[in-house]
Amino acid sequence: MKVEVRISLKRDVLDPQGEAIRRVLTRLGYTEVSAVRVGKLMLLDVEGEEREHVRARVEEACRELLANPIIEDFEVRVL
Amino acid sequence: MKVEVRISLKRDVLDPQGEAIRRVLTRLGYTEVSAVRVGKLMLLDVEGEEREHVRARVEEACRELLANPIIEDFEVRVL
Repeated sequence: MKVEVRISLKRDVLDPQGEAIRRVLTRLGYTEVSAVRVGKLMLLDVEGEEREHVRARVEEACRELLANPIIEDFEVRVL
Repeated sequence: MKVEVRISLKRDVLDPQGEAIRRVLTRLGYTEVSAVRVGKLMLLDVEGEEREHVRARVEEACRELLANPIIEDFEVRVL
């Protein structure tokens, strides 16, 4: 199965990379862009038959390795 | 408007970061994960009234700055 993992910084965590991109966009003339937040998008191929089992395993992998639960939120979608 | 930008490596471009993550997952016991690809997810706040105009501007920003069109694909979604 294809599984999408979306990892984003928690709302109250500063995002200097996003802020740097926003500043460059402003300099390039994209002044209508008022904020940028940068996260990660992972696409996994996972062997398995049961969608719920696959989702639970990938959520476990997020907590253990893929995301940093202190500063990041994650969302798992079985496609 | 909130705009989501999904940036991923083109299919035939090697992804050493994804491959490293896959290897660690295997070592941790997630042997059912056979492939990992890592991309970027950006969330932009963009001022504007017309969805199509906003989408076109963000696509322009992708080509100019946010993505590397030689090795990456991008997808813009106005939320």
